[in-house]
Amino acid sequence: MKVVILGAGNVGTHLGRAFIAGGNEVLQVYSRSMESARKLADELECAFATRTDSLDTAADVYIIAVTDDAIADLAARFPLKEKLLVHTSGTTPMDVLQTGSAHHGVFYPLQTFSKEVPVDFRNIPVCLEASSETNMQMLESLARSLTDKVYRIDSTDRQKLHVAAVFACNFVNHMYAVAADILEQQGLPIDLLRPLMEETTRKVMTGEPGDMQTGPARRKNQKVLDKHAELLAKNPEYRALYVTISKSILKKYHT
Amino acid sequence: MKVVILGAGNVGTHLGRAFIAGGNEVLQVYSRSMESARKLADELECAFATRTDSLDTAADVYIIAVTDDAIADLAARFPLKEKLLVHTSGTTPMDVLQTGSAHHGVFYPLQTFSKEVPVDFRNIPVCLEASSETNMQMLESLARSLTDKVYRIDSTDRQKLHVAAVFACNFVNHMYAVAADILEQQGLPIDLLRPLMEETTRKVMTGEPGDMQTGPARRKNQKVLDKHAELLAKNPEYRALYVTISKSILKKYHT
Repeated sequence: MKVVILGAGNVGTHLGRAFIAGGNEVLQVYSRSMESARKLADELECAFATRTDSLDTAADVYIIAVTDDAIADLAARFPLKEKLLVHTSGTTPMDVLQTGSAHHGVFYPLQTFSKEVPVDFRNIPVCLEASSETNMQMLESLARSLTDKVYRIDSTDRQKLHVAAVFACNFVNHMYAVAADILEQQGLPIDLLRPLMEETTRKVMTGEPGDMQTGPARRKNQKVLDKHAELLAKNPEYRALYVTISKSILKKYHT
Repeated sequence: MKVVILGAGNVGTHLGRAFIAGGNEVLQVYSRSMESARKLADELECAFATRTDSLDTAADVYIIAVTDDAIADLAARFPLKEKLLVHTSGTTPMDVLQTGSAHHGVFYPLQTFSKEVPVDFRNIPVCLEASSETNMQMLESLARSLTDKVYRIDSTDRQKLHVAAVFACNFVNHMYAVAADILEQQGLPIDLLRPLMEETTRKVMTGEPGDMQTGPARRKNQKVLDKHAELLAKNPEYRALYVTISKSILKKYHT
């Protein structure tokens, strides 16, 4: 399929590479910043635009990959009212695209993207929503060129999914960052913890996370919990995190 | 080496298997519960005891693998005052073993153990402490029969390491469990999140967790944070977790 990508950040970059790898054609990259637009267009070997009125009109799908706050504004300035316009957000409802085009939808790749960290798109679920069955089938065709994991998920479910994803990704990464900080303060290498981190995630790849819980809060060992809070006394913020999360575990398994 | 294991729970079970796999001899398993003692002894094909006065006297090392609360009491009842006595705890200081034997130490395998989930000990760091250099060398010899990742770590560092491990393992698993709950309430399969969970951990295997942070709090997107808190309104406990952890991320990256 022929695609135009609106937005030249992490998501636009990774999607652009994946579209091309999947045999699609990226006609153009749009960004308000000429530097960002040109940089991504150079990598994808396509044209670029910095104004919505110079968008290529020949694409099948126009994909908005900008921050949530900017989606509605960009849709309002989208001039091609008969073209299929989608966004890639987990949180923004589909209907903010109505002002852009009667044909709209959502193309939400459920993954964490960092610049310079390559991802294998075949393993990434793509969650789709569309304003009509015809549009949905176009999006499914595009998504299947990237991955076998294609799901139809409406705006309400997608928002809940995004909250769950924040816990399973962003908050998990923050737990790792806190652990790394504690080790660093002690002059200990984070390598010590990496096998534990790997095993924790490996266990839930096949099992239910709730069945895999271990640790002092799971065992209701109040002495260890108190000792750990005391060890974090010089870091009140991490101490507060420790106490709040431990209470949540105690509540889940001991009430 | 010849080993006696005191305690027949998760840690005792996994250590017992690993000692044998590493070419050591487990002479005996001790547990106050005859059923637990016999069950593990059957698996390891060794003798068992339910009283400390019937411990086999021929072992090189006696390994206490019981809950933190029970270590001091068991050490006080340990009759072999000239034998090397160690515990496996991340939190309990080494010196609680002094009443048991002048020769004592710590043999702390830094991993999460669940019954029925096999682990590869070659990938597990073992943290050692000992009351003398001679005892340390015995423990190093034993540890190296299981893994190449052998570290000398004193009680203070080990306690901090254990706090960090709670963040990197127990709290991470709780984040997964919360995510699974949110999906389940929505009738969505946890399979949707598994690639994200895998990728989040894969990224920090080589990088610094702090450099890998993504998500609404990292981007300081207050609208999404508010929307997510609102979506969790019917679950005040998860809402409190969401707000507390997001604040901690905001503080780390935006102050």
